Amino acid sequence: MPHDAKAAKAGTRPGGRSARVRTDVVTATLAELTEKGYDQLTVEAICHRAGVHKATVYRRWGGVDGLIADALALSADQPWPIPDTGNVDEDIQLLAREVYTTFTDPDLRTTPTALIGAALRSDLGAAALSAFFTARHQQAAEVVTRAVERGQLPADVDPVELVRAATAPLYHRLFITGEPLDERAAHRAAAAALLAARAGLFDAPAP
Amino acid sequence: MPHDAKAAKAGTRPGGRSARVRTDVVTATLAELTEKGYDQLTVEAICHRAGVHKATVYRRWGGVDGLIADALALSADQPWPIPDTGNVDEDIQLLAREVYTTFTDPDLRTTPTALIGAALRSDLGAAALSAFFTARHQQAAEVVTRAVERGQLPADVDPVELVRAATAPLYHRLFITGEPLDERAAHRAAAAALLAARAGLFDAPAP
Repeated sequence: MPHDAKAAKAGTRPGGRSARVRTDVVTATLAELTEKGYDQLTVEAICHRAGVHKATVYRRWGGVDGLIADALALSADQPWPIPDTGNVDEDIQLLAREVYTTFTDPDLRTTPTALIGAALRSDLGAAALSAFFTARHQQAAEVVTRAVERGQLPADVDPVELVRAATAPLYHRLFITGEPLDERAAHRAAAAALLAARAGLFDAPAP
Repeated sequence: MPHDAKAAKAGTRPGGRSARVRTDVVTATLAELTEKGYDQLTVEAICHRAGVHKATVYRRWGGVDGLIADALALSADQPWPIPDTGNVDEDIQLLAREVYTTFTDPDLRTTPTALIGAALRSDLGAAALSAFFTARHQQAAEVVTRAVERGQLPADVDPVELVRAATAPLYHRLFITGEPLDERAAHRAAAAALLAARAGLFDAPAP
């Protein structure tokens, strides 16, 4: 067995055993959630799949809602691939398009759709979802900051507000009104957000 | 006892006994939900409050999620007071402002906030929420139709899309990201939607 594989097996990869248990349990949670849905999600099945004792999971996560919250916390820590084409219109369109693709592609959509849907079913999940979106918005705001530096957008624009406006209509359809999501809706959300930003509607409040 | 009060007591008001039971049970559901929250909501407590047999509720509504769905169906049937100032900018601002007020005023916000939150916790509730928003958007679209007739907006604008865009950012903050909602966010949502509509971004697709 090569050294790396042996080290990984012994639980000495970065973060150590505790981080490995977390990854295994969250992965099992997402798999169970995707296969069975929130209503059929049990700590027992998650533990069986992850090969972890129930006592460990209850102690560390409390129950299924704590597991869902932690799955979102782990996702929030992952870097989001932020477009950088040199053209802010294209970058913002790509951000909206990425949300569209993630939640409509039959191979990609199931897990994130189930995860957000599940987060909306508990206070613990809702708090984690809020933190998740804060992290995502802040990461993606770089697209706007760069555009301001290039002179493509007014200097006063609130970067998070532009990112939020370009993607909010998609999440609104998916998780609130249950209306269908198409490419046109994604394109329109991005274009409307850029228009509003250029008109000064998203200017940050004066300090 | 005056004739009207006697008739009401005997259950002969419009819609009859069945409609009266529905109103009583839905009213009790909303009161229990507002007081105790979704996690503590029970058919038993609702029946006790409404003075209705449990068997009736289970037979007609199935359980708490069916009750929440019906509360939304009943709300969707209520006419929404649609502004009609003669000025579409003002009307759209008033629509967004009404959502803002409903969900931030300490006396008004509790029941609708609890009801939408509860609807997001079951598939039955989510389907009812979708139908509720369809009804609301269609009612409010009249604001846009009238403005088109007055020549205040392009004839090709999709009325529902403009109403949706003016209010979606508020629901997105309230029920998805959990971000605070202020008057500025409501004003901005309405102004951005009007700007996009005038730029032709909300034109209905060619038939």
